[in-house]
Amino acid sequence: MRDFSQDHRWLSINTATVRKSKGVDLPLPEIIEACVRRGIRAISPWRDQVQAAGLANISRLVRTHGLELSGYCRGGMFPATDAAGLKAARDDNRRAVDEAAELGAPCLVLVVGGLPGALQGKPAHKDIALARSQVHDGIAELLEHARQARMPLAIEPLHPMYAADRACVNTLEQALDLCDQLDPGRTAGESARTPAPLGVALDIYHTWWDPKLQRQIERAGKERLLAFHVCDWLTPTVDLLNDRGMMGDGVIDIPRIRGWVEAQGFAGYSEVEIFSTGQWWQRPHEEVLDTCIARHRTVV
Amino acid sequence: MRDFSQDHRWLSINTATVRKSKGVDLPLPEIIEACVRRGIRAISPWRDQVQAAGLANISRLVRTHGLELSGYCRGGMFPATDAAGLKAARDDNRRAVDEAAELGAPCLVLVVGGLPGALQGKPAHKDIALARSQVHDGIAELLEHARQARMPLAIEPLHPMYAADRACVNTLEQALDLCDQLDPGRTAGESARTPAPLGVALDIYHTWWDPKLQRQIERAGKERLLAFHVCDWLTPTVDLLNDRGMMGDGVIDIPRIRGWVEAQGFAGYSEVEIFSTGQWWQRPHEEVLDTCIARHRTVV
Repeated sequence: MRDFSQDHRWLSINTATVRKSKGVDLPLPEIIEACVRRGIRAISPWRDQVQAAGLANISRLVRTHGLELSGYCRGGMFPATDAAGLKAARDDNRRAVDEAAELGAPCLVLVVGGLPGALQGKPAHKDIALARSQVHDGIAELLEHARQARMPLAIEPLHPMYAADRACVNTLEQALDLCDQLDPGRTAGESARTPAPLGVALDIYHTWWDPKLQRQIERAGKERLLAFHVCDWLTPTVDLLNDRGMMGDGVIDIPRIRGWVEAQGFAGYSEVEIFSTGQWWQRPHEEVLDTCIARHRTVV
Repeated sequence: MRDFSQDHRWLSINTATVRKSKGVDLPLPEIIEACVRRGIRAISPWRDQVQAAGLANISRLVRTHGLELSGYCRGGMFPATDAAGLKAARDDNRRAVDEAAELGAPCLVLVVGGLPGALQGKPAHKDIALARSQVHDGIAELLEHARQARMPLAIEPLHPMYAADRACVNTLEQALDLCDQLDPGRTAGESARTPAPLGVALDIYHTWWDPKLQRQIERAGKERLLAFHVCDWLTPTVDLLNDRGMMGDGVIDIPRIRGWVEAQGFAGYSEVEIFSTGQWWQRPHEEVLDTCIARHRTVV
């Protein structure tokens, strides 16, 4: 396992972590400047933040600073109630793939969606099996476009508490079942120069509880492990979405899980992704970034 | 699948559902009277409610009214940081078995516990594998006492969002793995007159999201399915513990899951268990019980 204690060369900041500074929206260019100033070498930006600042502008900034990306957040949200909805999702996901390529991202992270309308509090139906089937078909279709763009897709299993409204792929096993169905050849294995078209983004917040986690990480192997996200699970957790903890403040044994991932040969970034309305988004972003660096070196 | 639309003979009320009436604690004897008045034939009481009213008193009330129990809530909370803590859990669980027997319950529901101290916001460690091992050992030891008391133990897998503080058994598959390890002979299969010493309490709130749910229900079979709990998953859910929905108000396809359970031969009660600080505990308990009856007949 890599030694993170001496520097933060393998730290990446998911830009949602500093989406707000002292409660106020922080534009992506300022986030980038603050990361660069601290010697942070990689980020994973969100689409809405990129769009607000302009894709060309962010692409230029990333290249100027020699920044790497550890991912691009996010595509997905495949399920819909009618053909028009499915087509809109398909078109939007193709644009996301193209944006990820323009930014030089190593993968597009997929939060696959749940029951249509549930995120707006108005679920159109209760058939999660149907939603899962639409996710399967949506990824299958997007995969063709992703192959042409040479952009790997990283399915992110989300915590089961998001099954209804955000993602009906809820365990690493389920995500890997999808990978095996849609990319049985593990394309990356055939040629090191071809990026894996399909794999997973492993976020410990979503998966730490899973009694099968270690076995499924071993099943994934290096080819399928496209991204590794960290934060922490707080006790108590007071909000289902925006009460993620800073690494070290919760109950997740992060080094143990990182050890499992690195035992498979994963040598990429450890990406910090914290949504925190009550705590970290209330603080100055400089303090949040400095804390991420310190915790990356001590508890990740 | 049984037709629930004509009556509510297979409705059981978990007494936590009417723990409060208009925000005020409702004593168990009053809950029992209100259930009996409505022709509700079964309840599943909580230990703290029984203790507040007196075990002998409740036992007498149950028998006087010819009430059945669909379970007794709850034993468990096995993990601890030292031998004294483990022994205290063991002793308390034995008492719970004895109380369940005194009340004529068909099973003692086990909420197995998580990281010691996490429920109090002070987790003693981050080793969920250790907690799981203590749960295994705790159930193994309790099983001897349960066999003597002829009291089946029902392991309740809790939603993964409770893994840290309430139960580190989080899927039906994991619960059944425990059953197979600790009771490989499926004792009930050997003699219909011997109650199954070990099985599961299946609560759809905790398990509805699971892509393997149907397969694991089939694996459980009639011998392992000791209790069936219903409520609903709301979108949004505003509190991790006490924002469960009334059947029909959320996204769970309840009849589909009940169909899977009954296809295994389950013919017991459908037990309503709703924790709801903001909604149902604020209403008069009479209204809550009447609503449970109506929903049982229409959407369960």
